[in-house]
Amino acid sequence: MGRIICAGLGPGDPDLISIRADRAIRQARHLAYFRKRGRQGQARRIVEGMIAPGTAEYPMEYPVTTEIPFDSPDYNALLAAFYDDWAARLAGLAASGDVVVLCEGDPFFYGSFMHLYVRLRGLVEIEVIPGIPGMAGCWNATGQPITWGDDVLSVLMGTLPEADLLRHMRGSDALVVMKTGRNLPKIRRALARAGRLEAAWLIERGTMPGQRLARLAEVEDGDCPYFAIVMVHGQGRRPVAMREAAE
Amino acid sequence: MGRIICAGLGPGDPDLISIRADRAIRQARHLAYFRKRGRQGQARRIVEGMIAPGTAEYPMEYPVTTEIPFDSPDYNALLAAFYDDWAARLAGLAASGDVVVLCEGDPFFYGSFMHLYVRLRGLVEIEVIPGIPGMAGCWNATGQPITWGDDVLSVLMGTLPEADLLRHMRGSDALVVMKTGRNLPKIRRALARAGRLEAAWLIERGTMPGQRLARLAEVEDGDCPYFAIVMVHGQGRRPVAMREAAE
Ligand SMILES: C[S@@+](CC[C@H](N)C(=O)[O-])C[C@H]1O[C@@H](n2cnc3c(N)ncnc32)[C@H](O)[C@@H]1O
Ligand SMILES: C[S@@+](CC[C@H](N)C(=O)[O-])C[C@H]1O[C@@H](n2cnc3c(N)ncnc32)[C@H](O)[C@@H]1O
Repeated sequence: MGRIICAGLGPGDPDLISIRADRAIRQARHLAYFRKRGRQGQARRIVEGMIAPGTAEYPMEYPVTTEIPFDSPDYNALLAAFYDDWAARLAGLAASGDVVVLCEGDPFFYGSFMHLYVRLRGLVEIEVIPGIPGMAGCWNATGQPITWGDDVLSVLMGTLPEADLLRHMRGSDALVVMKTGRNLPKIRRALARAGRLEAAWLIERGTMPGQRLARLAEVEDGDCPYFAIVMVHGQGRRPVAMREAAE
Repeated sequence: MGRIICAGLGPGDPDLISIRADRAIRQARHLAYFRKRGRQGQARRIVEGMIAPGTAEYPMEYPVTTEIPFDSPDYNALLAAFYDDWAARLAGLAASGDVVVLCEGDPFFYGSFMHLYVRLRGLVEIEVIPGIPGMAGCWNATGQPITWGDDVLSVLMGTLPEADLLRHMRGSDALVVMKTGRNLPKIRRALARAGRLEAAWLIERGTMPGQRLARLAEVEDGDCPYFAIVMVHGQGRRPVAMREAAE
């Protein structure tokens, strides 16, 4: 009886995969990953060149696109059936050996693997290998620490209502906003209302080929990349930053 | 002319170091790391067994201990002189080849490397290699996703005033509190006031030998480990968690 191994891939550069995940991916005989229908898929692209010949691949293609209203019961039913189906198939495959599931960034940090995880837990042995979260690759790309001293960091999803975004943008020192795309105008508005737009960066495809770094205030209105993170760096509270050294 | 390479070590398990940092550490001829006076140092312990014979080591020993009041001018002056001194020494070493500086977790996430970084930037070429933050190793150890769907995650330092802790504990879905130690009674009080103590975990030495996991409410009052993280997992907002899949 094999295991399901979810391998965190880190932000995108294959050199930033952990030793353990690298080993699991190279040894995989069954390899599964999510992707949009008809695409190669981001996760699969990251491991290009690492897959042993003869490895069986299982692209798990989302059955829905953004054309269906998100809150329709059909949409949720379709997705639930999709996860149920793949959980059963992966459990079946595990009967004949380890199955590696690829996951961008860190699997337990807003990862879609958890929809399989909640279904498989207790049925199959599962190992989750942590990864560098995408945001850490993005702040690394800016060449500036995201936090120091006593800074408070809040991680927000661009899908949140504007009022929620605004409240956290006002109350925290450092900010990370994920799931940008068509939420970008709302994110930008909230940052401006919080007086923090001038300090905000947009990082697209951090650590990947085609990485782009821009000040958010200088990005065109219609330019709404999905695979991007908006970030405001903390300024540190220096006396306390000193304090930490001796603790 | 060599570079200063700061290698993020991840949470502690050497198998969770990235491919790039692993390579840099094994090839290092000059290796520097912070530690408390008279200790081996956490960072150095993580790379035990990876250091090539003949590598020169530079333990950077903090000149102060917790016996000096943190807010005294002496304390800050001593620390500033210590960082100035080491920045100059590392820049000197870099003249004869690459210098690798070890850093726990991710260097740009509350890392002490930044005190050298701000002094060296512009003088020497610096490469910072991201790492898995300690908190990701800790939530991995709990076997539960820290966030999903639209959860808001706030990262707090235990050194913050109780009122600040309380405000963020009330306003965020998922919580990570670092720098525990003697701040633990205050952290516990704030969590109780926010109604979140029952859901809180204490993870000590996550992914390291001697890792300990406990429900914070069940930890003795006098038990105040420093190298530990307090964590409350987000519960996800399910309809939105579904929504993300198709974005
Ligand atoms: C569903 S979340 C998955 C997060 C992932 N588990 C992690 O740890 O980073 C997808 C979002 O992550 C962000 N993201 C992840 N990696 C990124 C990268 N390298 N560059 C830019 N954005 C990234 C984007 O905002 C995207 O909308
Ligand atoms: C100055 S911060 C350094 C953070 C580091 N740069 C990172 O990315 O995790 C030190 C704090 O990190 C936390 N920490 C880091 N790694 C940890 C681990 N493996 N287990 C428990 N706590 C950890 C502790 O709360 C400690 O007080």
